[in-house]
Amino acid sequence: MDFSQNEICRLFGIQFPVVQGGMVWASGWRLASAVSNAGGLGLLGSGSMKPELLEEHIDKTVVATSRPFGVNIPLAGTYGAAHVDVCLQKKVKIVFTAAGSPKIHTPRLKEAGVTVVHVVPNALLAKKAEACGCDAVVAEGTEAGGHNGREGLTSLVMWPSVADAVSIPMIAAGGIGDGRAMRAAFILGAKGVQLGTRFAATVESTAHLKYKEACVQADGGQARIYNLQHMPIRSLMNDYVKEFCSLEAAGTPVEELQRLRGKGRSQKGVFEGDVNQGELVAGQICERIKDIPTVQELMTRLLDGFERAAVSISAR
Amino acid sequence: MDFSQNEICRLFGIQFPVVQGGMVWASGWRLASAVSNAGGLGLLGSGSMKPELLEEHIDKTVVATSRPFGVNIPLAGTYGAAHVDVCLQKKVKIVFTAAGSPKIHTPRLKEAGVTVVHVVPNALLAKKAEACGCDAVVAEGTEAGGHNGREGLTSLVMWPSVADAVSIPMIAAGGIGDGRAMRAAFILGAKGVQLGTRFAATVESTAHLKYKEACVQADGGQARIYNLQHMPIRSLMNDYVKEFCSLEAAGTPVEELQRLRGKGRSQKGVFEGDVNQGELVAGQICERIKDIPTVQELMTRLLDGFERAAVSISAR
Repeated sequence: MDFSQNEICRLFGIQFPVVQGGMVWASGWRLASAVSNAGGLGLLGSGSMKPELLEEHIDKTVVATSRPFGVNIPLAGTYGAAHVDVCLQKKVKIVFTAAGSPKIHTPRLKEAGVTVVHVVPNALLAKKAEACGCDAVVAEGTEAGGHNGREGLTSLVMWPSVADAVSIPMIAAGGIGDGRAMRAAFILGAKGVQLGTRFAATVESTAHLKYKEACVQADGGQARIYNLQHMPIRSLMNDYVKEFCSLEAAGTPVEELQRLRGKGRSQKGVFEGDVNQGELVAGQICERIKDIPTVQELMTRLLDGFERAAVSISAR
Repeated sequence: MDFSQNEICRLFGIQFPVVQGGMVWASGWRLASAVSNAGGLGLLGSGSMKPELLEEHIDKTVVATSRPFGVNIPLAGTYGAAHVDVCLQKKVKIVFTAAGSPKIHTPRLKEAGVTVVHVVPNALLAKKAEACGCDAVVAEGTEAGGHNGREGLTSLVMWPSVADAVSIPMIAAGGIGDGRAMRAAFILGAKGVQLGTRFAATVESTAHLKYKEACVQADGGQARIYNLQHMPIRSLMNDYVKEFCSLEAAGTPVEELQRLRGKGRSQKGVFEGDVNQGELVAGQICERIKDIPTVQELMTRLLDGFERAAVSISAR
């Protein structure tokens, strides 16, 4: 397929308008460079890294691919500002920001010539990101894994609203795992797509094999949002989440619940593969994940499916 | 557009594969007959009717349209079985069942030659409906208004799973309000679509004007699921729902919360237009509802948008 006129491909200088989400514990240099080498845009997920580790992953990515890649930074995280500094220092050309306001850091990134994309859960915040000077937005529906908006707007209803609300291009995210969904996203106004959980369950992801297998086995209904009162997170139901939810239903104070969650729950789940007691951050797209392919295999399938979905329309 | 080979059109004997959801307090004979006269399939929403009133609405619909129409029956409701009896007595040709098992009533409806469609929230229940002899399923994502599954599976991830799981045709529902979304649904495996809230906010719906205006004004994030512990319902945030949720968060027992909800909340909201104290049953598609058109106008737009969405693909 020829995407040479596609806005997202032109913005990043890539071959296919497919972005790999920057996820905690799953997306280091190996995954990001594999996606970039396959013609998409790989992102380093800095959310689970200290600044020194992010530097190391940037250096390794530069060696592993000559193609464009980026870094995802959760701005409200402990190292939000520090990660921005690292990206500027290392002359990273593309930065995706999330979980926090784009007001503070977008100007200094833009001044340094960085392409900046912000992740939003609705049209109002998409407009704000545009006003801050962002070059594109990722519009992420509630089906996505990990931190999630409180409103619970789904991709289907939110994408066209965001696409209509801004003039910068929209990258659709949340619930995409194959070419059919990618085609549906384009019909609803997307110029590109971002896949998170689907890439977390590939060979090159640093997620533990047991985590990947859990994604394959789970249906979408098991990827629930929990911790609603404090900070909504979508992850797979397991012993830990069940305990958390039953304590929550019994009226346990929020602080006590956060103590139960503690630190390192997602590391335990995604990276160490503790499927019972870890936080298995994942999106509803587990419904459609049936195997653990390589990145190249996944990209080929995705683009084939995208093309076939259009052919089936014209033949109707 | 020529839908003469479309499975849903052939199943019901209609012109366009567009079903109007059978909603409480909004879909009487006037709305259902208008939709059927416009080439779609109108459904009487029996959930807010006693059997005598359903009889009356069936009689009036027969007078108002010579085209096929149907009745939606929430099986677990007070009058579930009685409504099935009314439909058999009145020789209604199409029945949509929801909220309850299709096991008991599907066989006797099928024996009488009725076309039976069951509403499901996931692939597993779609298979069960198929095994019970249903002719089609409505696959309704969590974005839909009213009673809702606990798992919260969204349309985007659920539709392709249902389409792949059954060999009977799938009607997609939840989050559809225009031709773009209808096209996306078809790409994801649908042979037809069902629109609820979008039809509730048309001229011919019996919902109160204040309810319709609330749908126009609300964005999708205001259509929240509440009453999760007892029976999840998606409706617009207002004084009543806020009070309910804050009492719930404070650990109020479920029985007391149900007493607060009481009887007639949806009547108060949808039919009587009490936008502060009523239950304004509505889906996330409020995000995309900007006006209160006639049914004919809506159908024309929907089909135009559906066609344009395909043209824009082939021109890419």
